[in-house]
Amino acid sequence: MDYLQLAKTYKTPLYVYDLAKITDAFSEMKDAFKARKSLVCYALKANSNLSIIHHLAKLGSGADCVSIGEVKRALKAGIPKYKIIFSGVGKQDIEIEEALQSDILFLNVESEEELFRIESIAKKLDKVARISVRVNPNIDAKTHPYISTGLSENKFGVDIEQAKSMYIFAKNAPNLEPIGIHFHIGSQLTELEPIKQSAQKIAELAHSLLALKIDLKFFDIGGGIGICYTDETLINPYDYAQAILGALYGLDLTIICEPGRFLVGESGVLLTSVLYEKYNGKKRFVIVDAAMNDLIRPALYQATHEVEYILKGNRESHTLTDNLCDVVGPICESSDYLAKNIKLPSLQAGDVLVLKNAGAYGYSMASNYNTRPRPAEVAFMGEDVRVIKHRESLDDMMRDEAELLQNYEDSKCD
Amino acid sequence: MDYLQLAKTYKTPLYVYDLAKITDAFSEMKDAFKARKSLVCYALKANSNLSIIHHLAKLGSGADCVSIGEVKRALKAGIPKYKIIFSGVGKQDIEIEEALQSDILFLNVESEEELFRIESIAKKLDKVARISVRVNPNIDAKTHPYISTGLSENKFGVDIEQAKSMYIFAKNAPNLEPIGIHFHIGSQLTELEPIKQSAQKIAELAHSLLALKIDLKFFDIGGGIGICYTDETLINPYDYAQAILGALYGLDLTIICEPGRFLVGESGVLLTSVLYEKYNGKKRFVIVDAAMNDLIRPALYQATHEVEYILKGNRESHTLTDNLCDVVGPICESSDYLAKNIKLPSLQAGDVLVLKNAGAYGYSMASNYNTRPRPAEVAFMGEDVRVIKHRESLDDMMRDEAELLQNYEDSKCD
Repeated sequence: MDYLQLAKTYKTPLYVYDLAKITDAFSEMKDAFKARKSLVCYALKANSNLSIIHHLAKLGSGADCVSIGEVKRALKAGIPKYKIIFSGVGKQDIEIEEALQSDILFLNVESEEELFRIESIAKKLDKVARISVRVNPNIDAKTHPYISTGLSENKFGVDIEQAKSMYIFAKNAPNLEPIGIHFHIGSQLTELEPIKQSAQKIAELAHSLLALKIDLKFFDIGGGIGICYTDETLINPYDYAQAILGALYGLDLTIICEPGRFLVGESGVLLTSVLYEKYNGKKRFVIVDAAMNDLIRPALYQATHEVEYILKGNRESHTLTDNLCDVVGPICESSDYLAKNIKLPSLQAGDVLVLKNAGAYGYSMASNYNTRPRPAEVAFMGEDVRVIKHRESLDDMMRDEAELLQNYEDSKCD
Repeated sequence: MDYLQLAKTYKTPLYVYDLAKITDAFSEMKDAFKARKSLVCYALKANSNLSIIHHLAKLGSGADCVSIGEVKRALKAGIPKYKIIFSGVGKQDIEIEEALQSDILFLNVESEEELFRIESIAKKLDKVARISVRVNPNIDAKTHPYISTGLSENKFGVDIEQAKSMYIFAKNAPNLEPIGIHFHIGSQLTELEPIKQSAQKIAELAHSLLALKIDLKFFDIGGGIGICYTDETLINPYDYAQAILGALYGLDLTIICEPGRFLVGESGVLLTSVLYEKYNGKKRFVIVDAAMNDLIRPALYQATHEVEYILKGNRESHTLTDNLCDVVGPICESSDYLAKNIKLPSLQAGDVLVLKNAGAYGYSMASNYNTRPRPAEVAFMGEDVRVIKHRESLDDMMRDEAELLQNYEDSKCD
């Protein structure tokens, strides 16, 4: 793809997604589990653009949602309701109600209190709520503490004993139907062993539930398979599947997996234009037009995105420089950086940098900090390029506030 | 203010601002500098709601802006153009052009490259660009590294020698008029000494420029005065002013200061409703309906916001508990917390927590992560309460994406 041309046409900063890569990642994950019935539920939080979801819907993907907003996105993008799961520790009553009205596959329940709430809402609506309990296996996923979720010091899920009593309660409650069991120990996982241990622990619980005549249909293994940002060892989807399948011996369960980053992370890049180069003492900075409001992963998780460069005007050679540089944005704080201590040639205004592997947790975490409009998003399939989200306009950003201020000022003059 | 009633009327999460506190803070800052001509330029990035800016405009405030979007906000909110400053390391050509067309007070220039760019754009527009150079004093502000900006390892400003040569260049350039000098060493400053040292260094530079017949009008000391989140020692505005005034002996300069957090931080609270309480092992969690997308300061800066509670239904007593708790939101990662290890009584769904001192860098950094609509904002003055920003709606959030997807699908059917 001619990124320089895209930058010229659509301006920067710009998110660009290669849909073919999403297709490939989806197929790889789906194939890995072909020995069993399986459902891949895309974790929308990684990138919730409707066109991205729609592309996955056409491939047969379901959706893992963590807010009623995400459930609505999934439905709007064409994912069938029977492939939609609603997870999350803080579901509001109105969200539970709307999820039950939408008749989605099931709700992953994260606490006893929530189970009681769901029961009472289901009763009120005269519905049967299909549920799954998220079990916290208390296993260290060995990822960044901010995205580790499978320890009891994390807010997620319930322990095995509590899970068991919740299943018994649900089995006896006419408005609840326990149909699945769930665990998810973190994001950007690069080690298989914690997943394997977790799957075994949860499978044991499924066995003991079976002995209690609680016969589940789904084994939801969460998501979290990592991608390669720099030099991480990766988990191969096939090995991943084998580890899970091994644990499921003797259980007739459909596997649900919830990849987010794995499906979309590598498909996306963030294009940004160089504005200035400057030195402060010996420290070299490349200042670009993207900032932490567009991509907060470096500031928030100390994440690393590889950076490629494209020189404008077909410059064939360029001044080599041994000075490592920081790539920073226009926002007025030092946390606003996109890369640190990397090697780049001397750059000029208008050269384009390509931040790789920015398809996940890029746009979905973007903000308007410093009154910066969020970037546009384009997707391509082969040569077919299209805008899937327009760049925000300042007028749109201010309209509501301006009207409220105007109305108030007018009312004072009455 | 009856926060429980506000939560009921406007729903939660909700930002609430007390405009009287902003008035008080503004007066305190303005009074501190009364021995000299001074201009207080509110740093919009702290909270850029038009009604907040408008309130400050009526008090006589100017504006410190870091994007053309912020310049437009300032103008729209009624701040006169001759009180508006445009700062920032990454100004785009179009931003410089629009700033010059808007005829604002001056641009704070952060690099030599930018100075040349401004000159060439001013020439093209046949205008004279009023400028000030941001000097990096290379002094440690002793604040969080993410908001420290006055070291040469930071991207901001230029060193003293380079500043001097930029002033000489500007003086000789017909389309440039150097009228100010600027430094800003960080945010949430709690120590006076680094500011004092910086002011002295920059004042020396102003003296030496005067010897070169470069006669400036403004001494822009930036912002960064801290507020009290927990037990920080605070800088008294009077002492702050004395430190600056002492450095300015023999110089006839109008002081510009750029407070952001100091003016609005204490005016705001974030109201959030309790959804669930849960224990994971011995670890206690209070799950609320606000999350890191609403207030990212705890996750990003490990910031602490004091939490007060209001029990619903006039419950007079409550179960005491010695178990410290984490206050966490519904977002699916462990970075989603609002407070850690704090003491709160046993809470029920519908009780309200008040996160204090959330007026600065709260809403302005909010995002839609997890497809969560950004909260509403209300402001009050005495008994007069009004909405200054509506809660976002899911339909509004998805409209553009939905239309683009629909158009694309329709075009394929043609």
